[in-house]
Amino acid sequence: MSMPSLTTPASARPTVVIVGSGFGGLFAARALARADVDVVLIAKTSHHLFQPLLYQVATGILSQGEIAPSTREVLSGQKNATVVLGEVTGIDLATRTVTAAMIGRDEGFHQRYDHLIVAAGAAQSWFGHDEFAEHAPGMKSIDDALELRGRIFGAYEFAEVAAKEGRLDEVADLMTFVVVGAGPTGVEMAGQLVELSKRTLRHDFRYIKPGDARIVLLDAAPAVLGSFHPTLQEKTKAALEKMGVEVRLGAMVTGVDERGLTVRTTGSDGTAHEERIGAVTKVWAAGVAASPLARVLADQVGVEVDRAGRIPVQPDLTLPGHPEVHVIGDMAALDHLPGVAQVAIQGARHSAKEIRRALAGEPTGQRFTYVDKGSMATISRFRAIAEIGRLRLTGFVAWLAWLAVHLVYIIGFKSRLTTLISWFVSFVGRGRAERTITRQQVYGRLALERLADLDDRPDDRPDDRRDELSA
Amino acid sequence: MSMPSLTTPASARPTVVIVGSGFGGLFAARALARADVDVVLIAKTSHHLFQPLLYQVATGILSQGEIAPSTREVLSGQKNATVVLGEVTGIDLATRTVTAAMIGRDEGFHQRYDHLIVAAGAAQSWFGHDEFAEHAPGMKSIDDALELRGRIFGAYEFAEVAAKEGRLDEVADLMTFVVVGAGPTGVEMAGQLVELSKRTLRHDFRYIKPGDARIVLLDAAPAVLGSFHPTLQEKTKAALEKMGVEVRLGAMVTGVDERGLTVRTTGSDGTAHEERIGAVTKVWAAGVAASPLARVLADQVGVEVDRAGRIPVQPDLTLPGHPEVHVIGDMAALDHLPGVAQVAIQGARHSAKEIRRALAGEPTGQRFTYVDKGSMATISRFRAIAEIGRLRLTGFVAWLAWLAVHLVYIIGFKSRLTTLISWFVSFVGRGRAERTITRQQVYGRLALERLADLDDRPDDRPDDRRDELSA
Repeated sequence: MSMPSLTTPASARPTVVIVGSGFGGLFAARALARADVDVVLIAKTSHHLFQPLLYQVATGILSQGEIAPSTREVLSGQKNATVVLGEVTGIDLATRTVTAAMIGRDEGFHQRYDHLIVAAGAAQSWFGHDEFAEHAPGMKSIDDALELRGRIFGAYEFAEVAAKEGRLDEVADLMTFVVVGAGPTGVEMAGQLVELSKRTLRHDFRYIKPGDARIVLLDAAPAVLGSFHPTLQEKTKAALEKMGVEVRLGAMVTGVDERGLTVRTTGSDGTAHEERIGAVTKVWAAGVAASPLARVLADQVGVEVDRAGRIPVQPDLTLPGHPEVHVIGDMAALDHLPGVAQVAIQGARHSAKEIRRALAGEPTGQRFTYVDKGSMATISRFRAIAEIGRLRLTGFVAWLAWLAVHLVYIIGFKSRLTTLISWFVSFVGRGRAERTITRQQVYGRLALERLADLDDRPDDRPDDRRDELSA
Repeated sequence: MSMPSLTTPASARPTVVIVGSGFGGLFAARALARADVDVVLIAKTSHHLFQPLLYQVATGILSQGEIAPSTREVLSGQKNATVVLGEVTGIDLATRTVTAAMIGRDEGFHQRYDHLIVAAGAAQSWFGHDEFAEHAPGMKSIDDALELRGRIFGAYEFAEVAAKEGRLDEVADLMTFVVVGAGPTGVEMAGQLVELSKRTLRHDFRYIKPGDARIVLLDAAPAVLGSFHPTLQEKTKAALEKMGVEVRLGAMVTGVDERGLTVRTTGSDGTAHEERIGAVTKVWAAGVAASPLARVLADQVGVEVDRAGRIPVQPDLTLPGHPEVHVIGDMAALDHLPGVAQVAIQGARHSAKEIRRALAGEPTGQRFTYVDKGSMATISRFRAIAEIGRLRLTGFVAWLAWLAVHLVYIIGFKSRLTTLISWFVSFVGRGRAERTITRQQVYGRLALERLADLDDRPDDRPDDRRDELSA
């Protein structure tokens, strides 16, 4: 891999390199807008992803553009910021150099830094069973969401044909949807799968009744929304079951294949019981593991990453012995901070402030204090739960709170009238603005190769008839 | 492949099978809404595609959902219509049976018909050079458009890094975009590539000047928009060149690779000249070839498909000797009808009417007469050309006509306020609502496999910490 050294725009100003374009990375860049530094943001996607709404892309409510604005468009007006596409593979604390690979190309590049903010986030974790991923994809990227959109809408398409053909066992498997992980993402996904089956698709089929779809929400934990207050957990579980979701707690997934999965539950008498659930469509919303960059850093400072792959940081979010290196968001382990957007956003602002203080020669090393602004999860349209300090909201009031918070955030980037309309279409009406799936999503890659054979076309036309024929 | 026979909903009514969900297939289904028949529409995509706007998905103006509504959603209220996903691979005229493959699954199915409307359309043609497709993808499907979106926006991302690294030759190739085929699609694509470089991306980069991008429009024919009147051809060529598009006519593509393509031009003295154009991003909008089903039918009635792979049909659009089989749209060769949406739509209505007459015991075999409602092409925002009979419009007036026609059509499916807003954002403002590209689109599949290795994450967390960590 050729490695030309890469310099930032000629200037005497210190360089702040930011790794990641998620909540941490993007907010760190913005928080340095007025600082006398060159900001270089390196990320492996060209967009900032509003992860909390991924489930709406997967279920056809929103388009990818509505939750994933181009990072360089967002930072377009910030003159001291440069956005570079690249997968950071190495960080050398001794030479203060970041190494990135240009995915899909041979070249990579090095980037020197004076200050570094590492915000590479976390990826889905299958708890040591990465082989599950093929049949139970995660919910962490736009690719994931579009893949799931294809599998979900595709399952109904295939079920219609199977029903027409009288292959009823296949119909049952195609119309069973299993969501693994009952955290906010899993709960929201399960709720949307019900809305799809009972409302959106209700009148669209002739041989199957979409409303008969079986939606199962699994978790190894004893409760849904483990991080919320027990009363909200109970209310959420009851609301999901009232909607028709099969909530299975204390259920550990032991195997996943194309047609279903196996689950181990432990009875009250302590005896383990294995069960098979036939389900073509599985969604993995169970766990996350920090970016491998955490380990890259940990090895150099001689600390151990925790079981989530996160690196233990100083109270000021820096690396031990490296006040110039900040680790924020899902990659940092400190005081059992949860892996939520607010921790990354507040950490970003804290680190940016620390860097500004360092540049001004002021004392640094201030402790990071997280202000819990509360957390929420939608169960279905018009129904959510929210916990803000001691305040606990449920139902419509909580849903309005959800709407308000998300609108404020989204409009923060660009006026998103289309998002409002898409929501209106989905919440008030029965429709979905974005049901479209690519052939690749619904059929998968191997199938497409087979398709290519079918598509082999006669091909001996002279050029002079092109225009006449092109639509 | 197991082949259970597939029956339509139990009824004594005749079955009309429609192959394809494009303009021909969808309008045929709708035209039979009040007929006393069972309509079975079989298509290989689950959406109807508004092909004339594909270039807007490829260039980030619209989302896929805005131009490709779910076919079964469109036909949801039509009780006599059943939509089935499947790739039709065979048609047996003797037994009146259609055979379809369930792509990505082993099962296929048979479907009996009393009347058949074949509207499988046409695919991109590389004129016998299918190997060009990998580096110069076509513009015929949502998959194509999203793939091109990734390549186009990705080229600028890679160019920024290459410029940062001082690899200027690579920058030049990355910032050169070649559109092959100067029909309406090619002209519209070239125009949008200019708008992207000079307006949308103008302020988003630090090392490259997007406005310096080189946009080349190639065609082997001697004029652009070959099917239009010479004065409009001239005006279009002039307008494109004024915008900065390099229009190269009489230029035949002889080779395509990752970094560029070779072109053969013939000088006035008749000597051929080969030229190399360095360009990472190539768009193939040159030619089309009819669905291979045309040949399947031709072989059974003993006729030859034409050079475009189209089947010669009777004046009433039926197959010789098979009044129950109608072939419409891009698959049918009759009186040099152009391969445009209106031919398919009018053909669909004609065939539906013929079927209704046959059911009523009225005489059939009426000649299909195509009413040319005119054709148009947009050059850039606020500028288009239109030809309606002897009337020729250019500039803003033509663009308004374009806007009116397309709005009427799109609103025909569902109120598409979001489309209006997306257009407002792009035409009035500088923005693009849908710049988001998946990692797969920008990096390609092979690269993603490499990415998967990079993404290998620590993965030994116990389950009970899921919820605490899931964002």
